[in-house]
Amino acid sequence: MCSRSTDSSLKVSVLGSGNGSNCQAIIDAIEQGRLRATVACVVSDVEDAPILERARRHGIPAYFVSGAPFKTKLEGDAEQRYIDTLRQHGTEIVALAGFMRIVKPPLLAAFPQHVINIHPALLPAFPGKQSWKQALEHGVKITGCTVHIVDEGTDTGPIIVQRAVPILENDTPESLHARIQVEEHMAYPEALQQFADDRARIKGRRVGLSSEC
Amino acid sequence: MCSRSTDSSLKVSVLGSGNGSNCQAIIDAIEQGRLRATVACVVSDVEDAPILERARRHGIPAYFVSGAPFKTKLEGDAEQRYIDTLRQHGTEIVALAGFMRIVKPPLLAAFPQHVINIHPALLPAFPGKQSWKQALEHGVKITGCTVHIVDEGTDTGPIIVQRAVPILENDTPESLHARIQVEEHMAYPEALQQFADDRARIKGRRVGLSSEC
Repeated sequence: MCSRSTDSSLKVSVLGSGNGSNCQAIIDAIEQGRLRATVACVVSDVEDAPILERARRHGIPAYFVSGAPFKTKLEGDAEQRYIDTLRQHGTEIVALAGFMRIVKPPLLAAFPQHVINIHPALLPAFPGKQSWKQALEHGVKITGCTVHIVDEGTDTGPIIVQRAVPILENDTPESLHARIQVEEHMAYPEALQQFADDRARIKGRRVGLSSEC
Repeated sequence: MCSRSTDSSLKVSVLGSGNGSNCQAIIDAIEQGRLRATVACVVSDVEDAPILERARRHGIPAYFVSGAPFKTKLEGDAEQRYIDTLRQHGTEIVALAGFMRIVKPPLLAAFPQHVINIHPALLPAFPGKQSWKQALEHGVKITGCTVHIVDEGTDTGPIIVQRAVPILENDTPESLHARIQVEEHMAYPEALQQFADDRARIKGRRVGLSSEC
């Protein structure tokens, strides 16, 4: 039931709008041999996003692809430009890393169950924006991060990896967010490795690990 | 700002309808010196509930107090009988441990912010029944338990302690529930100790720890 040969490394492409620290974590994990993958390309909807510069520094093809005329969604011609760019680089899996647009069915259908995202909370708790702030305000003692498959909902898709982060007595939104990011940088390569090994098995909402491949 | 003398041990009363394993964990923590408290009394709405037998075995006053005529709520005369029994034993804090009735404002008002409950999930995720099963079906990788102050909602009150439990590849509802219970038995005494030390500080939804008392 293995759908890809694990002889070649998994071709990951990363979409991001900002700093790209999760993209950097993926690149680092590959360079350090913790993740058997290649970053095929990095695409941003923000021309001067640091994520593009990070990619170029590592010799990774990096593109600004405009999302215009829309500001928060990816639709129509713009979406097709994204799909074309990803396909031209042989993308097997798309990792969203701070990509500030809602990704919709045409792109999801181009890479079925292979568009993944990272969210700074233990979903289903605290979906949406600034979830570290939501967690603090709700008064939880444990939050974390979640790598999940993107579906048509917001932060609702099947969960691949979660890591817990305790909330400390004097945490501010900033100190908590920083500690969550440390865990994100471990969680994202870990989740991708499951696809690189072709071990991720998606059954409904549950993502299990096969020992077969 | 200390509201009780910490010279005397905290008087905890436990309400339960079933096996009482969390009540046992509280008794054990007291006997082992991990929790500076006394169990003032144990009250059950089920005449032959094992929780009552557990209490009696440790010389703790244990009462069956009928919740009739209601089956799932505690109201009217029955509620008053509970309040009277708890007050007669000098109860400072009420710990719900598998108590299968909804506790409402009159009892909550009798012990303001001092009725606490334990829930087998990392709230706000998976409130309600069989939350270990909900967690498995949702496909989360981390769940846990939550000790919280009871308010007028269901599993919505301010959170005192949470402990995380990883979900394992071959977990069944039963195996997961058993591992959550192990953490519950540590979490409940830990939460009560914050009240015994008079260190729990409730500000809106957040429960912080003061170092003053």
